[in-house]
Amino acid sequence: MNKLVKTLREAMELAGLKDGMSISFHHHLRNGDRVLNMVLETAAQMGLKDLTVQASSIFDVHAPLVGHIQSGVVTAIETDYMSGSVARAVSEGVLKKPVRFRSHGGRPEAIASGRVRIDVAFIAAPCCDAMGNINGVEGRAACGSLGYAFADALYAGKVIAVTDNLAPYPVSPVSIDETLVDYVVVVDCIGDPAGIVSGTTRITRDPVGLKIARDAARVIEHSGLLQDGFSFQTGAGGASLAVTQYLAPVMREKGIVGSFGLGGITGYMVDMLNDGCFRSLLDVQCFDLKAVASLRENPNHQEISAMRYASPGSKSSAVDSLDVVILGATEMDVDFNVNVHTDSNGYIIGGSGGHSDTAAGAKLTMIVAPLFRARLPIVTDRVTTVSTPGSTVDVLVTQRGIAVNPAKPQLAGALKDAGLSVVPIEALRDLAERFTGKPEKLRHGNRVVGEVEYRDGRVLDRIYNVEG
Amino acid sequence: MNKLVKTLREAMELAGLKDGMSISFHHHLRNGDRVLNMVLETAAQMGLKDLTVQASSIFDVHAPLVGHIQSGVVTAIETDYMSGSVARAVSEGVLKKPVRFRSHGGRPEAIASGRVRIDVAFIAAPCCDAMGNINGVEGRAACGSLGYAFADALYAGKVIAVTDNLAPYPVSPVSIDETLVDYVVVVDCIGDPAGIVSGTTRITRDPVGLKIARDAARVIEHSGLLQDGFSFQTGAGGASLAVTQYLAPVMREKGIVGSFGLGGITGYMVDMLNDGCFRSLLDVQCFDLKAVASLRENPNHQEISAMRYASPGSKSSAVDSLDVVILGATEMDVDFNVNVHTDSNGYIIGGSGGHSDTAAGAKLTMIVAPLFRARLPIVTDRVTTVSTPGSTVDVLVTQRGIAVNPAKPQLAGALKDAGLSVVPIEALRDLAERFTGKPEKLRHGNRVVGEVEYRDGRVLDRIYNVEG
Repeated sequence: MNKLVKTLREAMELAGLKDGMSISFHHHLRNGDRVLNMVLETAAQMGLKDLTVQASSIFDVHAPLVGHIQSGVVTAIETDYMSGSVARAVSEGVLKKPVRFRSHGGRPEAIASGRVRIDVAFIAAPCCDAMGNINGVEGRAACGSLGYAFADALYAGKVIAVTDNLAPYPVSPVSIDETLVDYVVVVDCIGDPAGIVSGTTRITRDPVGLKIARDAARVIEHSGLLQDGFSFQTGAGGASLAVTQYLAPVMREKGIVGSFGLGGITGYMVDMLNDGCFRSLLDVQCFDLKAVASLRENPNHQEISAMRYASPGSKSSAVDSLDVVILGATEMDVDFNVNVHTDSNGYIIGGSGGHSDTAAGAKLTMIVAPLFRARLPIVTDRVTTVSTPGSTVDVLVTQRGIAVNPAKPQLAGALKDAGLSVVPIEALRDLAERFTGKPEKLRHGNRVVGEVEYRDGRVLDRIYNVEG
Repeated sequence: MNKLVKTLREAMELAGLKDGMSISFHHHLRNGDRVLNMVLETAAQMGLKDLTVQASSIFDVHAPLVGHIQSGVVTAIETDYMSGSVARAVSEGVLKKPVRFRSHGGRPEAIASGRVRIDVAFIAAPCCDAMGNINGVEGRAACGSLGYAFADALYAGKVIAVTDNLAPYPVSPVSIDETLVDYVVVVDCIGDPAGIVSGTTRITRDPVGLKIARDAARVIEHSGLLQDGFSFQTGAGGASLAVTQYLAPVMREKGIVGSFGLGGITGYMVDMLNDGCFRSLLDVQCFDLKAVASLRENPNHQEISAMRYASPGSKSSAVDSLDVVILGATEMDVDFNVNVHTDSNGYIIGGSGGHSDTAAGAKLTMIVAPLFRARLPIVTDRVTTVSTPGSTVDVLVTQRGIAVNPAKPQLAGALKDAGLSVVPIEALRDLAERFTGKPEKLRHGNRVVGEVEYRDGRVLDRIYNVEG
């Protein structure tokens, strides 16, 4: 007795997949993922209609999804992040229903609480045995942590593991175990390793980015939080990552041993672990192959589920213990609200991921961004889309000054005392506008194409269609 | 923010523990456990009444439970195994309600399906941080796997971790994580390491036991199952354990690499892992400190939950992939039914543990037992208590012959061809009776003191009171 099924189609039939159902995917294979496309292609061949795609993130590699929307195979999308062709088409109104955007912590909460129902979950499994024991650290498509897939595996009606690396029973180590898996399908290739590593996970070489990173490290140094037990997360953007290269020497020099590095993990965080800057890494997603190798080999590099990472439905999650998070922004406003969903033309180009979760949890939430990009100022009067509420954001670091949320006067004082250039956020807006001019107010259509659900389930903002 | 609570009483109050509720315990600290007694003592001080104790096993160390039954603090017990003073008192009728006996696989199924409700679970935590991340491999009371506690932590209304080893956040590795834990209480001592290792986990030196073990190994050798990928579980009884010392050389000589060793894990199984007899160990409970050390250090020695071990409610569990299990018996009958609950006087002296689960799952279920003990034959016309149905038992190995279930004629043929002494089970009964005489039929009282629930939820048998 085992759970092997000959074809994906047979597994989908056995799982009882029908019109109108909800199917889920995790995004650890990132822009190298082949599973989502494979499943939707099969769904189209089966003549299925009106599916909801419940994906933790959607990348440019998923462009064929646009065709499946146009043909009615897919009529709804719920996700934490969306970029590339699908995001563009959605922005232009290809989907009738608005995309429901969640955060990486809000998604597992919605699933665990039953607000979101998944009928069939597809687990891209880099290593899997015939009973459905899965890990992400072995095989050609090794992507490391499978953190976002845990909620899907736990709560979906049926779970189908899709693997290109069938291993003897029992797979060891195990991330998602056989108690949760119904069917196992072997395919030629679940993903392209080159696509798993995205271009965003390299430290910037841009001098402006480096200046920002250096100042961000100084903010941390003088925040009062940099002491033994310090914990830290940084996004995968170039300037965010660059903070590590300024922070690590300070920690070494002061002999500070941090407790954990959190989040999507890069090789830069692995270096900090190996250098003794942290006792452990808590890893919900590996951003590069160095992180994958470390997760496989270093017992202090722990895989965590999205529930453990950031779910507000958990009895606690790691973000609740987080000291500092460094995040990016496409736009920020004078109330410290942050937009990571849409660009200056109103197109969807991303999503919360763990942005709003870590901002809510961390003691110090810092946005790093250049004063302007492509002649558009970072600080505006009102962001186009509120992704993360300003009440959870403490500091903005630009190359021309540092703005501190007025709710944190003590922090502002400490940074001034340390000689950092602390200015009102309005000053950063005005300074940028001297270079760029006052940006024109964005004109958008009247159709809601996206709803941004905050981690507590409330709708934070709506995204409107772009008129082409 | 953390989950530390000053006293156990405060944690129990915060958890809302009230009269009539159900509280749960796991038994990895075995006869060294202090947590169950500590909690019940506190419950008594709080004036609580009518509690249900939902414990994966109960040992002699839990003798104070008898007093709590007499005073009305505890009025119901549900467990998988019960020995010592509590078992004796229950047999004599101290509890008004029958004890509900389950198996180690049936228990998590009952909890996960909601048939059993746990209001407050107490997790004895050898290593725990202030947010409730727990492992069993570090600390003075390190007991290794916490496999039986997973269902409790996942499904209980409230979860209280009780530790004598508060470690910095985040504990690494983690067995049960912070997403599931409400409160953390630090106490002086959760358990006595000497009691964790029970006397049953040593290989027998008795020549009769060794003869049985040697023949059991020969049965495996000629069963057709001993090939690459072979999987194996043995109970912790001396003769069961001794099978490993005859099996390992055969595997090495034939160059056979097994897939996994399963179950409660002893140092003998660790030796087989280290010798290359198995690729991995799946460990729901460590029987000795060598197993604890191996689980801590060897990544191929995996901790598994009781759901993964044996739950019939899981989409699959490890017992479904098991080739051979060696088990003990206090009594067996001519229909191959096995009793591991009661002794010849009708006293409760144990319980199913994983007995009926592994018997149901394994391709070959073998009972090893001497022909008679203390002048009582092992084979009777009808067991006092059916713990494991005869339909799931294949072979009985005694020192005077091997009986094969008539449902397995091919196996009987293969063993005969190999020169083993295969005899009808009735012949073993008759042979024993020539030494012991026909045993007197047990006289018992009319009150039901225990119900044996099979892994599918059905009541297999009832246990009656012993009249003193």
